[in-house]
Amino acid sequence: MTPSSPAPRPDALHGAGAAAAGAAAGTTGDPHLDRYAARTTGMTASEIRALFAVASRPEVVSLAGGMPNLAALPLDSLAVEVGDLVATEGQGALQYGSAQGVPVLREQIGEVMAFEAGSLAATGGFAPDDVVVTVGSQSALDMLTRLFVDPGDVVLAESPSYVGALGSFAAYQAEVRHVAMDDDGLVPAALEEALERLAREGRRAKFLYTVPNFHNPVGVSLAPGRRAQVVELCRRYGVLIVEDNPYGLLGFDGQTYESLRSLDPENVVYLGSFSKIFASGLRVGWALAPHGIRDKLVLAAESATLCPPAFTQLVVSRYLATHDWRSLVKSFREMYRERCEAMLGALETHLPEGCSWTRPRGGFFVWATVPEGVDTRAMLPRAISARVAYASGTGFHADGSGARHMRLSFCYPPPERIVEGVRRLAGVLDGELEVLRTFGLSGSGATGARPSSGTPGPQAPSVDTA
Amino acid sequence: MTPSSPAPRPDALHGAGAAAAGAAAGTTGDPHLDRYAARTTGMTASEIRALFAVASRPEVVSLAGGMPNLAALPLDSLAVEVGDLVATEGQGALQYGSAQGVPVLREQIGEVMAFEAGSLAATGGFAPDDVVVTVGSQSALDMLTRLFVDPGDVVLAESPSYVGALGSFAAYQAEVRHVAMDDDGLVPAALEEALERLAREGRRAKFLYTVPNFHNPVGVSLAPGRRAQVVELCRRYGVLIVEDNPYGLLGFDGQTYESLRSLDPENVVYLGSFSKIFASGLRVGWALAPHGIRDKLVLAAESATLCPPAFTQLVVSRYLATHDWRSLVKSFREMYRERCEAMLGALETHLPEGCSWTRPRGGFFVWATVPEGVDTRAMLPRAISARVAYASGTGFHADGSGARHMRLSFCYPPPERIVEGVRRLAGVLDGELEVLRTFGLSGSGATGARPSSGTPGPQAPSVDTA
Repeated sequence: MTPSSPAPRPDALHGAGAAAAGAAAGTTGDPHLDRYAARTTGMTASEIRALFAVASRPEVVSLAGGMPNLAALPLDSLAVEVGDLVATEGQGALQYGSAQGVPVLREQIGEVMAFEAGSLAATGGFAPDDVVVTVGSQSALDMLTRLFVDPGDVVLAESPSYVGALGSFAAYQAEVRHVAMDDDGLVPAALEEALERLAREGRRAKFLYTVPNFHNPVGVSLAPGRRAQVVELCRRYGVLIVEDNPYGLLGFDGQTYESLRSLDPENVVYLGSFSKIFASGLRVGWALAPHGIRDKLVLAAESATLCPPAFTQLVVSRYLATHDWRSLVKSFREMYRERCEAMLGALETHLPEGCSWTRPRGGFFVWATVPEGVDTRAMLPRAISARVAYASGTGFHADGSGARHMRLSFCYPPPERIVEGVRRLAGVLDGELEVLRTFGLSGSGATGARPSSGTPGPQAPSVDTA
Repeated sequence: MTPSSPAPRPDALHGAGAAAAGAAAGTTGDPHLDRYAARTTGMTASEIRALFAVASRPEVVSLAGGMPNLAALPLDSLAVEVGDLVATEGQGALQYGSAQGVPVLREQIGEVMAFEAGSLAATGGFAPDDVVVTVGSQSALDMLTRLFVDPGDVVLAESPSYVGALGSFAAYQAEVRHVAMDDDGLVPAALEEALERLAREGRRAKFLYTVPNFHNPVGVSLAPGRRAQVVELCRRYGVLIVEDNPYGLLGFDGQTYESLRSLDPENVVYLGSFSKIFASGLRVGWALAPHGIRDKLVLAAESATLCPPAFTQLVVSRYLATHDWRSLVKSFREMYRERCEAMLGALETHLPEGCSWTRPRGGFFVWATVPEGVDTRAMLPRAISARVAYASGTGFHADGSGARHMRLSFCYPPPERIVEGVRRLAGVLDGELEVLRTFGLSGSGATGARPSSGTPGPQAPSVDTA
């Protein structure tokens, strides 16, 4: 899944936000402070949260969130179908359902996976009974972590990695070890080194978490030639793979990739999502898992929510059954391609020398690197003052590193706003570089003379930066 | 919340069930067996699960589940409203939302609570910003346990207690200590004894979990005169209260009770649910918590699901705004009263001597006690053969005790089916007692000569017995 987040912050969008602000302020004065479980240690909201309340103002161009653009959804015909669902199937749709998910949707998920893989056979083998429908893939990620991770257990993840995954890993006290990526995705040699080091330590990672297609936050895909290597390495070292694939259908030219699961179905848990190809607000994702893990996922789901909402699942099912969803996916590709091109063009035109960035062929995100000395985390308040927001690279590393990077989302704002946002961002960067040139590097960054932007480190995920 | 479950098992209802059967079979042959976290130890599905696949056949009268009866829902007008929601507010309703919940619904939850409490002031103080909307109250329960319980921590709960709560407590490795109930609910002296014993052991319970109104599974309510005592005891011993109130509006005569929260808002987390007064399949519940806990709940929600579905929340909001929901609640009361009376009458008429049962004034459940020597868990397969299902009392105790009890639900089947179900149940009990009279007690029960019904003990919750 890798859900994503509001260009305008949803809390503020709807007019709330005091609770979030309270969370940002920490738990000072909480009379229950001595009662919490050990796993809540360090569980405080990012100070970015408070910033995003400001960033949600309409005059700010947000390149921070990962909200899909829903403008292309056929709301009128969908309204008719959803109304009919309530009128004719309401007794079932509004009732408790199966913890594993509504069977008709589990069947249809096969069609979605076959569309991406080219055929049902190419999915790696598909049976509706292998599927567990979840409350967005975030729920699948959280439950998998719950099932596998004891405090201190190692999880491998790309460097950088999806902020929502890091949030779940932190919630279960995992030790995250990041594995290097390059323009072809996860680097197999780096993975082998990490696995080998763990073996030398007498340890084993519980799983490798990876977003192989149109990665969040980097935007690149794992090269076809590397896929068998990654799968083989994990198999050899006895490490499960969690393959998170929310963007796989959003290749701009329609290109898709072989799933890791198809290469080793017994050692890969595959996560899919309707958030990016239909509607994020329904929170419908799925896991396709080996039987033993599937059974435990169903039990975990019963504890977590009793069952996922039957209603949202049946809305997705209706949509798939009554709409030309494949064409809509194609129109999404076009829309995101256009936005990505607008962003890449603007970055080329406006960003100061010394900056670099990825050139995605799908998905939602560009990953930018700024000149040495610039701290994107420290810079964020100044960017927001200049009416542009982004997600600092620090949120995508378990150890809070990554301050020379930022994630720029092209999914939500229209192209002209993206261009304007990048123009503003360039102005802020110019200002930072000017300060650097004037005062020189101070410590590890130009911001040494400024107030600290807060302690780095893993923080709770948030819809703002997911 | 205390969600509840299918009279016919939903999995089987929809035509699935193999995964559940697999789960029931255990994890034999799972190649990932050495990878799971310690908290999954003993995480196996109840064997009851397999039985319920059989129990879901239409010829079986299920008195086992806790599915609300939705027949009274105004589906046609609801269909119009939900269609309009998609057509006019689809862009927001289908998009990621706030992790705390949609603000308009958090406002409306105040109206629902005021309806029960008599006024907004009598709720114990209400601000929309104190509310966290959750994916059913099960999710709130699970997240609260996650926030408070380290492995081995003590949780106090009524004896018996809601199976879904016990499932979450087991998932986080809590030690559950049950506190005695009588016809007036939780016994304050027993609570004090439990608190005192913990104090002597140098321990403290993390919280008391209680369903004070129309209890699941017992059906009784905490007497008004005991409420201040319970609150005062918990305050004195420094133990938080989790007050789960899914049935509070379903008093047959419209009687409601003062919430524990209203007596000590800073030491009570209140859980509410739309599952029993509107639609369980939307999975919309809420927690009303002191600020520090509320903030952590929001962070936990981000890890668990990123955000609850905006769409289901807005469906609830629309319903509340456009329908006379108070009148519908009143019609639900009438329906459940009629069904309860049918059940109580049938129990009186048919059940053999030596049986006793509670006489609820609201909610969904009767708690029955059978003569010594009868084991309701061992008897269940025979009951299902006789085409009637119930929930054995063993599911409602963390230690698997309670075999002389059973929960009989009157919420879902129509009155004539309830009567028929009780008649069949009485026949099965007659048969058990006949065996007992013939062969005498064997060990602790009449079933010693029969194959064991499996190891007792805490098991995963399931929509079947929730």
